[in-house]
This record gives sequence, C-alpha cells and structure tokens, in this order.
Amino acid sequence: MLMDLGLRPIGIVRSCFGGKFAVPRQPGLCPSAWGELHLHPEFRHADGLRGIDGFSHLWLIFGFHQTAHEGWHPTVRPPRLGGNARVGVFASRSTYRPNALGLSLVRFDGLADDPADGPVLRLGAVDLVDGTPVYDIKPYLPYAESVPDARAGYAADAMPQLEVRVDDAAAAAFGSLDARSRAVIIEALALDPRPAVRHADHGRTYGADLCGVNVKFNVEGAVCHITAIEHPR
Amino acid sequence: MLMDLGLRPIGIVRSCFGGKFAVPRQPGLCPSAWGELHLHPEFRHADGLRGIDGFSHLWLIFGFHQTAHEGWHPTVRPPRLGGNARVGVFASRSTYRPNALGLSLVRFDGLADDPADGPVLRLGAVDLVDGTPVYDIKPYLPYAESVPDARAGYAADAMPQLEVRVDDAAAAAFGSLDARSRAVIIEALALDPRPAVRHADHGRTYGADLCGVNVKFNVEGAVCHITAIEHPR
Repeated sequence: MLMDLGLRPIGIVRSCFGGKFAVPRQPGLCPSAWGELHLHPEFRHADGLRGIDGFSHLWLIFGFHQTAHEGWHPTVRPPRLGGNARVGVFASRSTYRPNALGLSLVRFDGLADDPADGPVLRLGAVDLVDGTPVYDIKPYLPYAESVPDARAGYAADAMPQLEVRVDDAAAAAFGSLDARSRAVIIEALALDPRPAVRHADHGRTYGADLCGVNVKFNVEGAVCHITAIEHPR
Repeated sequence: MLMDLGLRPIGIVRSCFGGKFAVPRQPGLCPSAWGELHLHPEFRHADGLRGIDGFSHLWLIFGFHQTAHEGWHPTVRPPRLGGNARVGVFASRSTYRPNALGLSLVRFDGLADDPADGPVLRLGAVDLVDGTPVYDIKPYLPYAESVPDARAGYAADAMPQLEVRVDDAAAAAFGSLDARSRAVIIEALALDPRPAVRHADHGRTYGADLCGVNVKFNVEGAVCHITAIEHPR
C-alpha cells in the first residue's frame, strides 16, 4: 500500500540568490527577485510546455537541497514567532521536513529560448536559491487555489518590514549596480533575513550573496543599513 | 548538482472516493467530500501537528499511486478542452507526470483522536482517492498563495456542472443513505466524471464507487440521472 517514490529532477533553478541566507521565506514577498528554470535534456520538449504561456503563476515542487542532509524535527521555531515558540513541522513551511520537498508559487514571466538549454522559464518573485532542483511544474488554478479568507493561525499576515538605507560609504558601489539588482537587494533585506534567534547582535555585520555581489549590512531597530557592496574576486 | 530524492509516505488518505473514477479533478469543487489523513507510526507525534489547528486549509503533496506505473507523456488532453486539444503536461494538472506527485488544497476540519492510529486529520473538499499516499502537509498561507486575479489560460474557470436527478427506481435506496453521502454523490456527479473523450455514449450507464456504494448513472444533455444505488456484497 505504501509507495516509496523515487524522484528525479526535471530541471534546475538559476536565481539572484547565491546562498540560502537572505532568500525570502515565502514566495511573492520580493517581487523583483528573478529566477530561471532550465530543464534537463529529457524534458526540453517545447511540447511539454504547450499552453503554459496562458498562465501568470506556476507552482514549483522543488528540493531543499541545501538542508536535506540535516534531517527533520517534529517541531520547529518559526522566525515570525521570534524564534522562541515551537510549532509542529506540519504546521510550518520549515525546510527540515520528513520529505525535503518545497512548494513555491512563482510569477511566470514567459519563455526564453536559450541556445544551449532550449526553452527556459523566466520566473519572478522567487524564493529559491540558485541551484535548486525542481521536480514538477503545475499551473496555478485561482478558482480552486485562491482562498483569500483562509485562516492561517500564527502566519496570518506578512511580517513587518525593515526600512533599508544605503550608507554613504556604499553608495557609489550600490549605485553602479543595475536597477533590478538594486531592487532585489532592497526588497530582500527589507524582509529581515537575520536568524530569528539572535543573541545581542547589535552592530553585527551580516553578508548576503545577492545578484552576484556580497552585500554587507547591519540592523538597528527597524532600519537596515547597507554598509558595503563587495564584488567576488 | 542533481538530487534524486527518495520519498517515503508520512501517511495515507481514507476518503469517500473508493475508485479513481468520479474523483473531482480539482480540490474544492465537491465541498462535502470527506477524507481522513492517517499518519504512519513514525509521524504520529502530536508535536508534529502543534499549531496546525490555527489553519483552515492545508496543502497535501501526495502520490498518484493508481497511475504512476503508466509513466508520462509530454502532452495531455485536458477534460475541459473536450478531450481533443493537447497541452503540455507542465501546463496541466494531469496525473501522467515525470514525477507522479499531486498537489491538493484541502479544507482542514480538525484533529480526531483515533484509538489505533493516533491523531487523525479530518479533511474536507478533497479530490483524493481512498488509499492515496501522502508525502507532506504544509499550511496554506493566504498572504502569499491567494492570487485571485492570476491568469489561468484554458483553465480560467470551473467547468459547467450537470443537474443531477435521482430516478424513481433509485429513490428509496438513495434516500436511505446518510445526508453527507447523498451530498457527496450529488456534488461529485454534477462535475461530470465521464471521460473527456466519449464516443456516442448516449444512454451508457456508468458506475462510480462513492461513499461505499456503487452509484449507477447516465447523462443526457446537461442532466445526470442516478438510476441505481448498489451495495457491495
């Protein structure tokens, strides 16, 4: 009666999020965040995507490949509860699950034709780290899946956002980035990517790998200060 | 870089749908359809479900266990296109997918405590056949996942429904069923469970395994006639 299911990825995500730190905790919160889904050779049929351009949003079922080896816990501490209160893993969207599957609603920005990789899906508002393996794409069906008045317990509302400021010392480097990268950085840091459990982090500098640069920042109260933009060597 | 993921079920669904014929093609369309998710022993922690009662809707990621062995096709013929036009499998919710994973938004009607099986999740508006293996439960997050104005191409609206009538010959047997079973039967048949590709089926009698009885029906125009209710021996 049981079914142990072996999954193979159909493709891989390329995105503006170079590391898992500062990836938004849910999709849709960082509208400028971009990604591309490159299909593996077996799935590069234009046929398999026929009609997909009629949909504005897609579901991706993907793997939490960076944390899957760490196993799971019956309870987790969601960031929005301050990292203190515990809830059950099945009442959370934590990555530490019995089966390391993620579910993400992404904006579908159309198909591009890549000379090497065939049809590539351009995605927006993603919460997926670069390199994420994808197992399925499904169209979003608003008549069945949009339930605006659903009750969502402790996760009813989006979390409050930080104000993001660019320090004078970082202004020139920040200003030299393209507009989309600047928007991704502002939106991602506004979501406060710091770990929920913090011990006297006042003044601590964090680094986030966003849009190909390392963004240094610290947080004071409700304000996030970008202190430096470092380019990889 | 790839991740071949081995999944093990966390539980199994018991539902009013005894066979895959007449299972609604999407969740939410048959509000009276009930199910129960019974967790496997390893996952019967009350801890793992802590806080889940704050949510009115849950995602289930499950396996298409009845069709998984049939493999997949790059294109499929969705029922709502009359079974003639083909769309890509990734532009559809067909069960014949490269990875046989289903995604279903279900109503969460609370926990029951089963003497043998521990905490059982009571579910509503399900589109899951009895015996479906479940790999993950995730809470529904309306602030991120309710997009009422999403474009959904050929699947923009729910399909037109049939009017369901109970023939005189079946009235007594139908009337002896409990109210919930009667509602499930009416709602499920109104969705027109017949295969999309039909060849001169006028007058053909179908049988659907619903709520423990076999419901015989035929369809004339936009009217579904229940002709008999048969109890299993």
